[in-house]
Amino acid sequence: MVEFEPVMLAPIAGALALAFAGYLTFRIMRQSPGTPQMRELSDTIYRGAMTFLNKEYRVMVVYAVIVTIILALVVNYQTAVAFTVGAFFSALAGNIGVRVATKSNARTAAAAKRSIGEGLRVGFSSGAVMGMCVVGLGILGVSIFYYLFGDPRIIVGFGFGASSIALFARVGGGIYTKSADMGADLVGKVEARIPEDDPRNPAVIADNVGDNVGDVAGMGADLFESYVGSIIAAMVIGFIGVTVGGIALSQTDAVILPMLLATVGIFCSIVAIFFVRVGRGAGIKTLHAALNKGVFGSAILMAVVSFLLIWYLIGVMEIFYAMLAGLIAGIVIGLAAEYYTENRFSPVQSIAISSQTGPATNIISGFSVGMISTLIPIIAVCAAILVAFQFAGLYGIAIAAVGMLSTLGMTLATDTYGPVADNAAGIAEMSKMGKTVRTRAERLDAVGNTTAAIGKGFAIGSAALTALALFAAYTNRMVDAGITMDLSITNPSVIVGLFIGGMLPFLFCALTMRAVGKGASLIVGEVRRQFRTIPGLMKGRAKPDYDRCIGISTSAALRNMALPAALAILTPIAVGLVSPEALGGLLAGAIVTGLLLAITLANAGGAWDNAKKYIEEGRFGGKGSETHAASVIGDTVGDPFKDTSGPSLNILIKLMSMAALLFVPLLLKVWGG
Amino acid sequence: MVEFEPVMLAPIAGALALAFAGYLTFRIMRQSPGTPQMRELSDTIYRGAMTFLNKEYRVMVVYAVIVTIILALVVNYQTAVAFTVGAFFSALAGNIGVRVATKSNARTAAAAKRSIGEGLRVGFSSGAVMGMCVVGLGILGVSIFYYLFGDPRIIVGFGFGASSIALFARVGGGIYTKSADMGADLVGKVEARIPEDDPRNPAVIADNVGDNVGDVAGMGADLFESYVGSIIAAMVIGFIGVTVGGIALSQTDAVILPMLLATVGIFCSIVAIFFVRVGRGAGIKTLHAALNKGVFGSAILMAVVSFLLIWYLIGVMEIFYAMLAGLIAGIVIGLAAEYYTENRFSPVQSIAISSQTGPATNIISGFSVGMISTLIPIIAVCAAILVAFQFAGLYGIAIAAVGMLSTLGMTLATDTYGPVADNAAGIAEMSKMGKTVRTRAERLDAVGNTTAAIGKGFAIGSAALTALALFAAYTNRMVDAGITMDLSITNPSVIVGLFIGGMLPFLFCALTMRAVGKGASLIVGEVRRQFRTIPGLMKGRAKPDYDRCIGISTSAALRNMALPAALAILTPIAVGLVSPEALGGLLAGAIVTGLLLAITLANAGGAWDNAKKYIEEGRFGGKGSETHAASVIGDTVGDPFKDTSGPSLNILIKLMSMAALLFVPLLLKVWGG
Repeated sequence: MVEFEPVMLAPIAGALALAFAGYLTFRIMRQSPGTPQMRELSDTIYRGAMTFLNKEYRVMVVYAVIVTIILALVVNYQTAVAFTVGAFFSALAGNIGVRVATKSNARTAAAAKRSIGEGLRVGFSSGAVMGMCVVGLGILGVSIFYYLFGDPRIIVGFGFGASSIALFARVGGGIYTKSADMGADLVGKVEARIPEDDPRNPAVIADNVGDNVGDVAGMGADLFESYVGSIIAAMVIGFIGVTVGGIALSQTDAVILPMLLATVGIFCSIVAIFFVRVGRGAGIKTLHAALNKGVFGSAILMAVVSFLLIWYLIGVMEIFYAMLAGLIAGIVIGLAAEYYTENRFSPVQSIAISSQTGPATNIISGFSVGMISTLIPIIAVCAAILVAFQFAGLYGIAIAAVGMLSTLGMTLATDTYGPVADNAAGIAEMSKMGKTVRTRAERLDAVGNTTAAIGKGFAIGSAALTALALFAAYTNRMVDAGITMDLSITNPSVIVGLFIGGMLPFLFCALTMRAVGKGASLIVGEVRRQFRTIPGLMKGRAKPDYDRCIGISTSAALRNMALPAALAILTPIAVGLVSPEALGGLLAGAIVTGLLLAITLANAGGAWDNAKKYIEEGRFGGKGSETHAASVIGDTVGDPFKDTSGPSLNILIKLMSMAALLFVPLLLKVWGG
Repeated sequence: MVEFEPVMLAPIAGALALAFAGYLTFRIMRQSPGTPQMRELSDTIYRGAMTFLNKEYRVMVVYAVIVTIILALVVNYQTAVAFTVGAFFSALAGNIGVRVATKSNARTAAAAKRSIGEGLRVGFSSGAVMGMCVVGLGILGVSIFYYLFGDPRIIVGFGFGASSIALFARVGGGIYTKSADMGADLVGKVEARIPEDDPRNPAVIADNVGDNVGDVAGMGADLFESYVGSIIAAMVIGFIGVTVGGIALSQTDAVILPMLLATVGIFCSIVAIFFVRVGRGAGIKTLHAALNKGVFGSAILMAVVSFLLIWYLIGVMEIFYAMLAGLIAGIVIGLAAEYYTENRFSPVQSIAISSQTGPATNIISGFSVGMISTLIPIIAVCAAILVAFQFAGLYGIAIAAVGMLSTLGMTLATDTYGPVADNAAGIAEMSKMGKTVRTRAERLDAVGNTTAAIGKGFAIGSAALTALALFAAYTNRMVDAGITMDLSITNPSVIVGLFIGGMLPFLFCALTMRAVGKGASLIVGEVRRQFRTIPGLMKGRAKPDYDRCIGISTSAALRNMALPAALAILTPIAVGLVSPEALGGLLAGAIVTGLLLAITLANAGGAWDNAKKYIEEGRFGGKGSETHAASVIGDTVGDPFKDTSGPSLNILIKLMSMAALLFVPLLLKVWGG
């Protein structure tokens, strides 16, 4: 008989999470998908999303095969296998998430017909499916490979698989979604002067698909990467050897603890998901409170249970403090993002005020809000680093990242709820449902906007901490293998690494913004063509060819992500082959400017968006005024900032650190050891 | 009898430069100031500039007295004296430069009446006065204090004086100039729909004053700081001890060499100034070629003479290669700035093309041009660092900075020529001179625009290299005093330093942009008030109250620079008192993101400006089209980017590094040694 060991809880938790996701999906699918018109809209979005994903998969498979072969040759075959499974799991989680999200939008709207509480239940369940799939598949993959190989250094392959899919989902998806969005708006709103979500616009479905592809699949893959990345980094550092508070941890303890913390987080998240419910006539505040109960509830539960776990299992409480530092920093970063992007607070209002003197002052004001919003997250990250290191060294930093991400099942549920509610409100509007239902759907959407902003902040912060943990694992492995590295910032190799690494996020942003521009201009051409050549289209008597627009922006996205993707993967390897010290500097530089730029772009974009909404509520002349026109320009500038370039940086910094860690065996061959 | 020593050449070169500046000024003042109308315009700008400077001086004196007392108490009285003189010399150079520039604008226009060659001669002479004053006073100050105290560590006080004035001139001046500019435009062009330089606009003189205050005094003080900063950093490192190519340099050699290289540079610059002349009917290309002959000529001369000097005096040619690396990097960075901001090249043209789809695409496109433009300068800086360090260690990096700045007398002359030619063209226009003269003045202006872009790039690059040299001097001094510092990027103090240092440029930019916004809104209020209350103003029968606008934007600038200034000076000291390692990380982080952001902002701003001009030349519908309107918005956004926030970062990174080096004695008291 196999004796019970705590680590066995990890795959059990993973299976449980997946089972729970299955149950939630079953419950969602039992709901009515609404009127035939609603169903048709929902189906078109669903089919569009699948078109995008299938096309993307074809490219991904080619990429994955090539990387698998390279890994088998350069690293080892186990790592290659882990890579393949990591890529597959991440893609699977994204696929399920998008499927369920696109099946839930109309159902959420239909449920809102009965009551707002029902609407929240359906929409949030759909988010919870994504959350559970990500954490379930994540911990399942890591724990299975640990069982198979017993060596965390191999599981890095699994993480790199997750990173690679995140690259496609976040960068490719980000370029796709904003090409479609800007292309649709530039011809529809600006030239043809038809409303934003008008079904006559051939690019409107591509735009709606983009919300799911970018905010559901992209966000999911991003956080899947962070989740497994932080666990793996902690395991690798633990494997090499950890001394905390003067006590040397046993290798097994140090390696399995990250998995167990994640396991505890899954249980806490499942429990907290049941906290999220409201009564029949709930207002925005009540909805907000319900979601907050889930997020804070899971964090508090996590703190309590992990305290007991560490106390019982290891008895070295320093590790708990490191975990707690990460958990708290994650919440602070999320709240800071909320403060800088919500129109209840002064930053967004100051942008609205600046819009009165035109678009230029709107842009400058939004840009300065974005830059100033780096202060709190940076302090939170620094505090977490100092506390975590103080108590548990570099291992502590990785544990802090694990702590920040431990309740991901819950936080990702609230993130993914956002785009579902957004789509639901759009469907309620387009299918001309009654005013009561539309008001309810809009309330659900408004709350979703807030959670989306928090989610973006959280994604950035956790990406930075995960990348740092991976960076620490990289240096640890090199030093452990006997490579002497002078990582001092007075070493010119390190300085040059810092400069080049610092520059990469700027370059990456510029390339992704350009890619959006190119994609959008192709869509502009296609929409103009359809307006011109399809008779009766503008009068609503003929249907536009939605699929062509989806196809065009998909190909454009996949083509234009090649250069930034190559940059992200090849630069660290190339630099590492020249100097492993420069590679250290490169990673540190990229993490610092990547974090700063990502926060600036995400919050500036979010703030512009909400400044526009603030004016649309009737302030400074409301819709149609000059002030409103100025705010629309800021909002458009913010689109690629917050939905393409900014989030892509999360991937850049993690992928580069993951690549460095993954190719340590190659570097060791070159540098001896 | 005193025996001749090579170092005596330094003060001689300084005196010669000042004498040459005096001669040039005499020659300029002999020129006719043109018609009474021209003289009046010129006088108003002159008086306005003096109003600003005098008001600024009152604040500066208070600041200087406080800092002097602190330095005398915390460091030593010699440093305090050096500080006072450094501040005075920098202010003096700026004052002379602005006086001569504002006296030369009308004279340049009047000289252009005779021939374009005459116009160039007067305009360029005015720039040369600034160039000669800066290098003359710079080398004079450094060499005199070396003669007096013989210890470069005291001369750091002189550098900090220069830094402090640069802070006022660049940050205060930058806020002033863009508050006035944006304020004038927002009411004049947008609301009252009168032309840009219309004398009925009460803020128009404040705007013209701003060009001189920002581009002449600001640029001059910035480069004065870089010039003396790089020399002092090299001297401090040399004083501690330098081994190059296995040979230990004598302390005296290592300390005086930076001064001698600067001395050689002054002679080369003076010679090269005579290269800059054109015939009677010169076109833009010929004008360009003449200025290039000066810049490249001085660099080639410098390379040849310094080769001989190092060979003859020290015989360690490694130092020459380090110097050459810096000299070449400076030119490459300048040329890269030209490429990204000139409308002959594709980056600016791509922005113009994007403007066809509105302001949002114009902004996104310009922003991505700015970010991508970091690539070449970063590679140039990295190459210079690697080459310089390879040959001569950290001393080499400081020598590279000295090399880059050695021909400053010449490069600053071409920079300062820009705003003088700009003002001359404005005066030619406003005083309704004949078409021939105006065409000539416009040609002179167009060439000036190019040199200004190159100058900005050069200022940023040299600031980064100077800051790096100062940073190296800081760590060298600490280590020399027996403080063990773990400056490894795996040390959490260093990581936290990197994050906080990296964030400061973002914060600094946000604060300076906000300051411009606040200042501009005060000007808007005042201009509206004058339009409303001064009878007959709009019909040209009454004169506006120019001085009030100057006064308002001056006070606003001085008030709003307090917070960013305090941030720049106090952060490094506070962090250093907590951890000297974190201070190391802070400086490195700030230099990296400061350089990247400064390039992005400067080049995006320059590119937007020229994209607008490109459209105004008649492309995409030309002036008055929707495309033009979109490009105007980009240009306005770019104004504070390129003229306030971007250049302010040069000061931030140098000032922080200078403060760290200056307060080493204080840090040593705390940290033992």
